[in-house]
Amino acid sequence: MPFELTILGSSSALPTSERYPTAQVLNVLERFFLIDCGEGTQIQIRRLKLRFAKITRIFISHLHGDHYFGLPGLISTYSLLGLKNDIHIHAPSDLERLIRPQIDHMKHGLNFNIHFYPLDFKAAHVIYADDKVEVTSFPVKHSIPTCGFLFKEKPRLANISKEAMNKYNIPVKCIQDIKNGADFILENGTVIPNHVLTIPACKPRSYAFCTDTKYYEPIIEHIKGADLLYHETTFADDKREFARKTFHTTTKEAATLAKKAGVAKLVIGHFSARYKDIDALVSEAREVFPETYAAHDGDVFKVI
Amino acid sequence: MPFELTILGSSSALPTSERYPTAQVLNVLERFFLIDCGEGTQIQIRRLKLRFAKITRIFISHLHGDHYFGLPGLISTYSLLGLKNDIHIHAPSDLERLIRPQIDHMKHGLNFNIHFYPLDFKAAHVIYADDKVEVTSFPVKHSIPTCGFLFKEKPRLANISKEAMNKYNIPVKCIQDIKNGADFILENGTVIPNHVLTIPACKPRSYAFCTDTKYYEPIIEHIKGADLLYHETTFADDKREFARKTFHTTTKEAATLAKKAGVAKLVIGHFSARYKDIDALVSEAREVFPETYAAHDGDVFKVI
Repeated sequence: MPFELTILGSSSALPTSERYPTAQVLNVLERFFLIDCGEGTQIQIRRLKLRFAKITRIFISHLHGDHYFGLPGLISTYSLLGLKNDIHIHAPSDLERLIRPQIDHMKHGLNFNIHFYPLDFKAAHVIYADDKVEVTSFPVKHSIPTCGFLFKEKPRLANISKEAMNKYNIPVKCIQDIKNGADFILENGTVIPNHVLTIPACKPRSYAFCTDTKYYEPIIEHIKGADLLYHETTFADDKREFARKTFHTTTKEAATLAKKAGVAKLVIGHFSARYKDIDALVSEAREVFPETYAAHDGDVFKVI
Repeated sequence: MPFELTILGSSSALPTSERYPTAQVLNVLERFFLIDCGEGTQIQIRRLKLRFAKITRIFISHLHGDHYFGLPGLISTYSLLGLKNDIHIHAPSDLERLIRPQIDHMKHGLNFNIHFYPLDFKAAHVIYADDKVEVTSFPVKHSIPTCGFLFKEKPRLANISKEAMNKYNIPVKCIQDIKNGADFILENGTVIPNHVLTIPACKPRSYAFCTDTKYYEPIIEHIKGADLLYHETTFADDKREFARKTFHTTTKEAATLAKKAGVAKLVIGHFSARYKDIDALVSEAREVFPETYAAHDGDVFKVI
């Protein structure tokens, strides 16, 4: 039951020798979501041996180039690989206008359709859901309209206790009802309550993605209690004024948000190219929120 | 007096873990020309410690994505670095239409202008010249309109022989005339012929770039005698039929062209992602043209 985040890129607007611009792949129960798609994303997908064919749903937070310039190359590669599954892109409505000329210019046309779903920046919305996973977009606060995303497992049904099954000789036809919460009545009329028959399902896991944004407390209600939070930390805390001006966040601000939202773990990234020593940024954040980790390209963060 | 080629990317349409799509920087006497600009070019420029500010003249051979998808990111980075020199792009006329929406969408506008110069695919043209260097475009044969480029030093004036200067007591005011070919007449009327007074200048150096193209003999007249030729070799020689069909070249075909054009050295690249063993491709080409070398990202080829 995988729930894991792979960092493809963790630089801010200027890539460095060690860091590509923002891109991540989140595997939730074998659904592979691409979150942002900076230049070089397709190269990182290949290097990290992820499977192009699986990554067909894409979420673009905002339309600064370091978050979407990798899309034409990725789409071209899908086409050259002969893939045929449609691609679904949740993004600001302008995206299609920006990349459509390059897509239409591709050699042979595409063997698949690309569906664009516009984001809304005024309120939170469920923008994708299937039987096991739900994705919500919510507004964050950057210099242009930007969304964060929350990826969450749907609550699972309780598991049947094998011991109880044997003890009470429960027929198979009753299992689904019991999973749905029913009690079981023995032939002699005794009611065996549901909690005796079941083992509660694991708590649904969740991942929240917040970049680019300034420190913005309205985010908290959307990410409350997340197992994993990726929050931008473009600057160290001594650059708080500059961060505010450029609509970015500092180490301690990201850590404060993580703490107030009661998340389990914070991953920081989107580091300004000026920082060679990322450890110092992590140390700053840990003063406020000890469970802070730095993103490096290629890192995998598992939620268990 | 540098004349050197740096390979930024040498893959064909699909980048691999080791190879970026096509891009090169040619340094001719401290003019830095960028030739093609596949995705990730700006990352390679940074990795190889080339200077963005110096690279303001760009040549795009054709409009397949692996030859131009890196432009929006590169232009964005120029802007973020605060560069102010205009950028000059020689490319198929459609390029501006394809990338203009992304450029216009950049955050703060640009501090420089971008000048687009359309290529012609019917005949060879001098498309850039200054006092020391000349660049010629010429048609090659691909599935869409494509140009090759020849970069050539202009002929230099002869050097004055110091020995002759002293021997004949030549005044400084006469030097320029002698460099231009004049003889020198002694007071007694004796004519000292120019060839005694001068040392011939080095032969102008040249570099020819041919990708993407099928084997196409009309190229020969444009690249004759070049010191260095980069020619695509997408396939090994057993794929000759397929190469023809896809408008690409095989190892032995590229080597044959190099031989017929009488170039000094051939660099092959634009390898299909299917080839893990590039040495085998080089060996094949060397059967026809021994001075063949494979391009690897980061390689530098000097012309002395």
